[in-house]
Amino acid sequence: MATSASSLEPLAIGIDIGGTGTKFGIVDRVGNVLFSSEISTKKHAEVATFIDELYENLSILIKKAGGIGRIKGIGVGAPNGNFYSGTIEYAPNLPWRGIIPLAKLVQDKFKLPVVLTNDANAAAIGEMMYGAAQGMKDFIMITLGTGVGSGIVANGHLIYGHDGFAGELGHTIIIPDGRLHEGTGKKGSLESYASATGVKLTAIEVMEHTDKPSLLRDVPKDQIDSKKVYDAAMQGDEVAKEIFEFTGKILGMALANAVMFSSPEAIILFGGLTKAGDLILKPTREHMEANLIQVFQNKVKILVSHLKESDAAILGASALAWES
Amino acid sequence: MATSASSLEPLAIGIDIGGTGTKFGIVDRVGNVLFSSEISTKKHAEVATFIDELYENLSILIKKAGGIGRIKGIGVGAPNGNFYSGTIEYAPNLPWRGIIPLAKLVQDKFKLPVVLTNDANAAAIGEMMYGAAQGMKDFIMITLGTGVGSGIVANGHLIYGHDGFAGELGHTIIIPDGRLHEGTGKKGSLESYASATGVKLTAIEVMEHTDKPSLLRDVPKDQIDSKKVYDAAMQGDEVAKEIFEFTGKILGMALANAVMFSSPEAIILFGGLTKAGDLILKPTREHMEANLIQVFQNKVKILVSHLKESDAAILGASALAWES
Repeated sequence: MATSASSLEPLAIGIDIGGTGTKFGIVDRVGNVLFSSEISTKKHAEVATFIDELYENLSILIKKAGGIGRIKGIGVGAPNGNFYSGTIEYAPNLPWRGIIPLAKLVQDKFKLPVVLTNDANAAAIGEMMYGAAQGMKDFIMITLGTGVGSGIVANGHLIYGHDGFAGELGHTIIIPDGRLHEGTGKKGSLESYASATGVKLTAIEVMEHTDKPSLLRDVPKDQIDSKKVYDAAMQGDEVAKEIFEFTGKILGMALANAVMFSSPEAIILFGGLTKAGDLILKPTREHMEANLIQVFQNKVKILVSHLKESDAAILGASALAWES
Repeated sequence: MATSASSLEPLAIGIDIGGTGTKFGIVDRVGNVLFSSEISTKKHAEVATFIDELYENLSILIKKAGGIGRIKGIGVGAPNGNFYSGTIEYAPNLPWRGIIPLAKLVQDKFKLPVVLTNDANAAAIGEMMYGAAQGMKDFIMITLGTGVGSGIVANGHLIYGHDGFAGELGHTIIIPDGRLHEGTGKKGSLESYASATGVKLTAIEVMEHTDKPSLLRDVPKDQIDSKKVYDAAMQGDEVAKEIFEFTGKILGMALANAVMFSSPEAIILFGGLTKAGDLILKPTREHMEANLIQVFQNKVKILVSHLKESDAAILGASALAWES
């Protein structure tokens, strides 16, 4: 006797839209990414052709997974994604300008319920369902990647704010009149220091302000990244250590402010910078504690996400579909 | 036929514990403070004698209001008040050290249910029930007094955090390595600039850094407060205006960071400093907007509480009793 697809365990689709590429996959209830793939975001000047290519590629995965009848819904994580309206609004790193009704476009194409939120919020839900934040009701997710994103969970729920845009810790000002953020025009935001670009700029600045020898002096400036700084630091490079120390100082100050705002049980860090381990975590913890008033001291865990990086974005986005 | 007290409209008691004095009153469901009074906090080195005097004085009001049978419960607002445990923990401005089980002490004495939270959280609930935040689900309450307190409401609920201490925006660092806060030992917190003491210190600094004539030069340094700065500014005093401009700059930066955190519909300001009106509100708004990224710009209202100052603290605390 044939078993119909819909009687099998239901699955969810997770789509993570990034500035360069878009990852998507089909995920089961316990967080296994069964099938996944990726397309370019950047090459699509028009969102319509992006949706077409996404549909084409996802259809192959859906077929592999047993057909559309097994899919409960679609969750989408995207920069500047608005949970309430399902739109992407003025995302500086995406090719599409203005307000894009992305959830509706996906829903019309796939004929499935679609929930959209910003990528860091999706990551927070993913951590709550499958990762380091399981069982927690109050935590903050910080994604340290090309940009710095955040998702804030209080009393078991994501904070969306009155307009759906809450949780932009990356854009909070940590150093007044500090480093210019090219994308926003603002000065001294967390993102201008703790993002991939931020670490690169710090490396260049630190090297310019010291005569100390460094392995990093042999790396072309535009190729410096946290991986190269890490490799140098592991070989005892003092300049490389100083770069992490400075980055951790800024990040720690920002975390202290976040803690005094929503008093989370833990802060979950995710992204390339966390691979530096204690080189970045130690100064981050120290400077967070140093800026906290007494009632908050020695209470808040800084944890690194243990979700597989290639899966985490898809997992987080798919988690939205179960919640809906 | 006599009507028993308990068949009448129920009432609530609000108690607001401050560093200097403690205000308390009996409030009806719609926010009328029917009876109120005040005792000294400061003179009680022991919390036990404080509770005794409070009981004595409140008993008189309870009798006037028709007896204990009409009282539904007691709400207490206190610095470093913990909603979950009902304790006051390490409050630097109160005479009692360590952890004080205040809710239990009050409950044992009055034999009524007691809910305790920090004073700014209580003020936020008061604004939500009776004031400028009626109908709002996402707002931030900022109290600008001896200290700077805050209560954050997201999706209709106060954010308490994992330990009950969320909402300490006054202690977030706005100027790294900035002005020392004598109470906390931290540098550059919002409270070190936007509190009563902060405004006084700014006035002294601004006068020292300029040769401009000012009416404030005739005021003994320890008597400078925002009222005197306001009076001078209203007479066209340039130095006085600069003091508000500077204070508004810091406050505006702090509000921008808060907005990018929880994206509130409005920020409600309360306290002496707000009496300066546009002298403080205009620079605050300008600097808030200047530090916000695009998606948050021109959306967030800065409102001044219109609750009567003498009633607001009692109202806010009493509102807790209705919520329980």
